[in-house]
Amino acid sequence: MPERLGSPRETPLFRRLVLVGIGLIGSSIALAARRQNLAERIVAVDKDEGVRARVAELGLADEIHADPAQAVAGADLVILCVPVGACGAVAKAIAPALAPGAIVSDVGSVKGAVMASVEPHLPEGVHFVPAHPVAGTENSGPDAGFPTLFLNRWSILTPAYGTDSDAVERVRAFWQGMGANVEFMSAPHHDLVLAITSHVPHLIAYNIVGTAADLERVTEKEVIKFSAGGFRDFTRIAASDPTMWRDVFLNNKEAVLEMLSRFNEDLAALARAIRWDDGEALHKLFTRTRAIRRGIISEGQDAPLVDFGRPRE
Amino acid sequence: MPERLGSPRETPLFRRLVLVGIGLIGSSIALAARRQNLAERIVAVDKDEGVRARVAELGLADEIHADPAQAVAGADLVILCVPVGACGAVAKAIAPALAPGAIVSDVGSVKGAVMASVEPHLPEGVHFVPAHPVAGTENSGPDAGFPTLFLNRWSILTPAYGTDSDAVERVRAFWQGMGANVEFMSAPHHDLVLAITSHVPHLIAYNIVGTAADLERVTEKEVIKFSAGGFRDFTRIAASDPTMWRDVFLNNKEAVLEMLSRFNEDLAALARAIRWDDGEALHKLFTRTRAIRRGIISEGQDAPLVDFGRPRE
Repeated sequence: MPERLGSPRETPLFRRLVLVGIGLIGSSIALAARRQNLAERIVAVDKDEGVRARVAELGLADEIHADPAQAVAGADLVILCVPVGACGAVAKAIAPALAPGAIVSDVGSVKGAVMASVEPHLPEGVHFVPAHPVAGTENSGPDAGFPTLFLNRWSILTPAYGTDSDAVERVRAFWQGMGANVEFMSAPHHDLVLAITSHVPHLIAYNIVGTAADLERVTEKEVIKFSAGGFRDFTRIAASDPTMWRDVFLNNKEAVLEMLSRFNEDLAALARAIRWDDGEALHKLFTRTRAIRRGIISEGQDAPLVDFGRPRE
Repeated sequence: MPERLGSPRETPLFRRLVLVGIGLIGSSIALAARRQNLAERIVAVDKDEGVRARVAELGLADEIHADPAQAVAGADLVILCVPVGACGAVAKAIAPALAPGAIVSDVGSVKGAVMASVEPHLPEGVHFVPAHPVAGTENSGPDAGFPTLFLNRWSILTPAYGTDSDAVERVRAFWQGMGANVEFMSAPHHDLVLAITSHVPHLIAYNIVGTAADLERVTEKEVIKFSAGGFRDFTRIAASDPTMWRDVFLNNKEAVLEMLSRFNEDLAALARAIRWDDGEALHKLFTRTRAIRRGIISEGQDAPLVDFGRPRE
């Protein structure tokens, strides 16, 4: 597994890369694409004036726009880095300005709903290659980005049947250029896999943090004070961007509710084992789950640092 | 907040410290007590031959015993560091050998059940000061310990009404000597606070890791591969010691089931918000939970490292 980004390309993959929405992902792509020489010109678009000012201060892009339609003129790659609920509206806004042969992509954690809302707007001759880099941190905004966010992480592409293969290959090369591994999946399978590996975990993390804050017999101060017993691990992902996550749940409703009902069935069985003193059932589950942790570490998707490498002294 | 352990004591607090059970906690106490000169002589007891051999190799103790009754003769502090379900049997075994004036303590994550199972065995003149250091990692066994495990963490004491105040003060000083902060609570309140800050979080972490492993339409390989989307954070605590945790759930049944039913109610409301497109309710909760994370960091119970400080390059 490579520990750092490879050498930059000698010639860029794209002439004009437009990133619509400069949060954690948009800014990380800007930094990685620059370092790896993946695009001749990097263009940032954000509707928020404060974000645009910060993008300028950080030197993240060669051009900064408020209007996405203006920005995409002449672009050969446009990546939508906005919350998934906003993708359809952005696609509609940019559609008339897209050049024939341009590639449109995105980074949304949900693929079915994004494809359904973006595709109808795109003109003939524009190639849509949906993507989802499975990477992130709890921080948001243009200051949160860093160029190695995608290194050794997976980026899942879900192009529709018949999508121009040259466009697909160029998007694949773009992600590989930022150090990511690329996998192809159908959109429905993606949405199911992510429901269990990402969406439901976020939902239950948000939920338990909320439950803990609402108790009458335990104060919020106590919850915070004694959080080192396990609770604090949940708060990291429950500190993720609220708008992004609201949109994820509303746009992957079916898969999330299905996986949540599996989770609930299993939790009911565990509660029953506790109530009826079935220590053997508990011990058996708790032993199996250790193996999964080892798998994640050996696949390079987490570091084998005890206690996540939190400082000891 | 101190970033390292203070200077060692000039004169030890205890003459003969006996640690029964040398796992993560027992070995960490041995190392911290040694470094801080809290006991003249450190005695390790473990029923497992392999553990005793490892304790000898690591030089964790001055004496190593298989038989707890033999070990506690002449001890002024005995700390039970075994799973909470084993505390009663150990107390029964050591009771005849305890010297008058000896202090017995423990480190269990459950206090009500431990007090109920230990107290009846202890002879008159022996002081029982139950303790729970809220600290740990996902690793277990004598190799897992380190001397700063308790630094800046809370240790909760739950002595019964009327317990000898000199004994209580000495146990308090012992934990403070290892860098911990000490808090007093009633046992029932402790068990409720820990149910929400530690036991239920572990239960739902174990549960989702199990649910994910059991799906037919998503493979275990996929779950591992794409775990960077959130799932991997749960696997750390779901890799904790199975026997310890089985005992915790069986011995804090009432509080765990009560907190779990609160969690379930809230989760049902969240599922309903998703089903009925109530984006506002989702956004509101997701914004509140960020504040709790900030509280935990400002109280020094977690490090403000993005993504838990996982290596970036």
